[in-house]
Amino acid sequence: MKKQIHLLGFAQNSVAPHSPGLWRHPKDEGQRHGEISYWIEIAQLLEEGKFDGIFFADVYGVYNVYRNSYKPGIQHAVQSPLHDPLLTISAMASATKNLGFASTISTTYIQPYYLARQLTTLDHLTKGRIGWNIVTSYLESEALNLGLKGKINREERYARAAEYMEVVYKLWEKSWEDGAIVADKESDTYTDPEKVHAINHKGKYFEVPGPHISNPSPQRTPVLFQAGASSKGRDFAAKNAEAIFCVQHDVEGMKAFSKDVRSRAKQVDRNEDDILIFPAMLPIVGSTEEEAKNKYKELQSLLSYDGAVSILSGHLGVDFSVYDPDQYIENIETDAIRGVFDLYVGGKKKWTIREAVMHRGLGNESVKFVGTPEQIADEMELWMDEGDINGFNINQATTPGTFRDFVKYVVPELQKRGRYRTEYEGTTLRENMFGKGNIQLADNHPAKKINISVPTLQ
Amino acid sequence: MKKQIHLLGFAQNSVAPHSPGLWRHPKDEGQRHGEISYWIEIAQLLEEGKFDGIFFADVYGVYNVYRNSYKPGIQHAVQSPLHDPLLTISAMASATKNLGFASTISTTYIQPYYLARQLTTLDHLTKGRIGWNIVTSYLESEALNLGLKGKINREERYARAAEYMEVVYKLWEKSWEDGAIVADKESDTYTDPEKVHAINHKGKYFEVPGPHISNPSPQRTPVLFQAGASSKGRDFAAKNAEAIFCVQHDVEGMKAFSKDVRSRAKQVDRNEDDILIFPAMLPIVGSTEEEAKNKYKELQSLLSYDGAVSILSGHLGVDFSVYDPDQYIENIETDAIRGVFDLYVGGKKKWTIREAVMHRGLGNESVKFVGTPEQIADEMELWMDEGDINGFNINQATTPGTFRDFVKYVVPELQKRGRYRTEYEGTTLRENMFGKGNIQLADNHPAKKINISVPTLQ
Repeated sequence: MKKQIHLLGFAQNSVAPHSPGLWRHPKDEGQRHGEISYWIEIAQLLEEGKFDGIFFADVYGVYNVYRNSYKPGIQHAVQSPLHDPLLTISAMASATKNLGFASTISTTYIQPYYLARQLTTLDHLTKGRIGWNIVTSYLESEALNLGLKGKINREERYARAAEYMEVVYKLWEKSWEDGAIVADKESDTYTDPEKVHAINHKGKYFEVPGPHISNPSPQRTPVLFQAGASSKGRDFAAKNAEAIFCVQHDVEGMKAFSKDVRSRAKQVDRNEDDILIFPAMLPIVGSTEEEAKNKYKELQSLLSYDGAVSILSGHLGVDFSVYDPDQYIENIETDAIRGVFDLYVGGKKKWTIREAVMHRGLGNESVKFVGTPEQIADEMELWMDEGDINGFNINQATTPGTFRDFVKYVVPELQKRGRYRTEYEGTTLRENMFGKGNIQLADNHPAKKINISVPTLQ
Repeated sequence: MKKQIHLLGFAQNSVAPHSPGLWRHPKDEGQRHGEISYWIEIAQLLEEGKFDGIFFADVYGVYNVYRNSYKPGIQHAVQSPLHDPLLTISAMASATKNLGFASTISTTYIQPYYLARQLTTLDHLTKGRIGWNIVTSYLESEALNLGLKGKINREERYARAAEYMEVVYKLWEKSWEDGAIVADKESDTYTDPEKVHAINHKGKYFEVPGPHISNPSPQRTPVLFQAGASSKGRDFAAKNAEAIFCVQHDVEGMKAFSKDVRSRAKQVDRNEDDILIFPAMLPIVGSTEEEAKNKYKELQSLLSYDGAVSILSGHLGVDFSVYDPDQYIENIETDAIRGVFDLYVGGKKKWTIREAVMHRGLGNESVKFVGTPEQIADEMELWMDEGDINGFNINQATTPGTFRDFVKYVVPELQKRGRYRTEYEGTTLRENMFGKGNIQLADNHPAKKINISVPTLQ
């Protein structure tokens, strides 16, 4: 069997999260993001398309780096207004059977004991369909609103995240033994207390005695996603992640990235293929190549420059309003800024800032596959085989129009080629990603090797 | 029209939360609390019974005061295992139209900026059916697991909570003006940034620049519930609460409590009837008085003493294992402990500890109304009129058996007497509690009078 493609649908609980300005498209429905019915429709659409899951980006603050103000971000609906994605999941789960739900939650602002209960709860409610995109957060506005004096530097954030993972692994994997709930009426024992252990975690950043407040869910630990692109981020992913989101713009870059991540995984005693790699991709489908290209132009014309540059400024912590948008990137004096654009426009330095920002802005960094269903499927197969990836994180220009087109036109083409499932393999997210029977973390995952000390809180 | 009775259904996302041991009842379904279908069934049942809402208790830690160990609590399913109630709400909302959802969230462990988004999100998803039970938390095990060195004393908790409310009021009521979202395609303006304000809160406990990350929901501020019984708690409620949960055991005590709360409300320039008062009540219905009494006995026989005393020890922070359960309360040397029992058994000091604990344990402190539908309705009317209350927080012995019996037998009796709605007044929780058109906080509520300073974060 050909290597199978896995798909995730990229979303956020805001208006036009990854394509600023596209709320202006006549068919865009993002303004409905506060309605349950909107999320149920999207979930059912992705399940019809046999996606592994829907993946929610999230931040906890406004974008206020551009022009040193929150106003451009607010005006152009740059991931704003933003609602909590976790709170939509049980409604979507009640209207679907197989689709997974992976959400971004930050290790910097949510206490691990609280997060552990959130994800255990959702994994119970969905019968094992939950994933977690582990982030350490990057916006200064999040830090300031959530009780810190300022953003923690990357080194410290990752050190804290490493210990955070230790805490939640102990809670999910070691605190409650299998079969702890006995519900024995005779002895008035609902849970055998000898099978529930305090974790007594005492580290540099966290002290958590435990035990976990919730009984183990079907997957125990949710499927672990991560998206760090820095070297620190990749090391963290190599150790913890079961799937990685990434951004690459050509198949050579993709190949190099995959090779790097897989070799880092081996260095921490995991297998090369223990980590599924999902580059972000924006599909723009037409019945002819020309139609697709015209569609791309139409979408570009609705993209908001101020919105796109606000989001870029926030991601990088650099206020781009100091640069003339019509100057050539190659004329910018700061190496770091030129380097950033290299990443997005593939070293084509004759671009202006405006051109590069607009190119990047549609589908927020995603590589764009523009063409007929056959052309898009060709490109996907090429990336699968040459780029050594496992699937794609499908981004949207219009919501849910992009998903709708993709499910209607590209999915059948992938199925025809034997590249894509026609039925789900299992009912849990991990099974659909790693095969029937793989409900819980693999035995060689670091979480499985953690020991908890002998309980002292008796 | 006779003064109308309002009803809330008291729940928690655990097995037999307020009647330890009752999971052993042959018809109890609490073990299904991890399933979405369980919560949808309960929500539909309460909506069929025209309840104002379902009210979720919650804690973030295990009960480990009794015997200085978490083991008795774990063994007897004392609010354990416990899942997150907020995450069930969107599923219940998608299966109902009018029922409200009020959940307990602590001001001590969740950052106000994060909580504000959670509740705004849910109020959007439910189209205005959200309430918040404001608690400051009492379990040491919560503090230790959630990043504190130990429990904060009551004085400090309430001072912190007062400032917390200021922060969330600013976010909900003052950060986004009405009509801020204009979705004007011509000017590429989704939100008018001049109508969105930073709150620039700088206080003793919190610094929150804002603006709120989410646009205003139908109710803006969720309906505010509170349950503090201490003098500090009552003052807090008088200032902030729109509804109070309380525990009283006879109509005289109820009357005194209501008088006290209503006079405190007047002292802070609110009206006597701005606060709805809901005592906890466990209804045990029979077709005859004898049948009801036998049912009470049967339920008592399934109550777990160790479970009930674990929960009491946790509530009071006193390890009752040091006392012989069969000693008379009047012989206990500690005044404070005797005083506590006075509260539950109405000064009948010839009770043993065991008798008092078992009496208290069924429906966790609730007053018990045991009898025919007519007798229960009589008692409810008496409390309404003499006790000067607005309704009841209906507790359960078996779940959802108690709700089922109440909806089937008592609700029609109340309707027959003209004491209870046959149709909902509105679609938001606040309208169903305060009448059609009262969607947002009353103008005389302190939250409406808060000023935010001129934004400095531009």
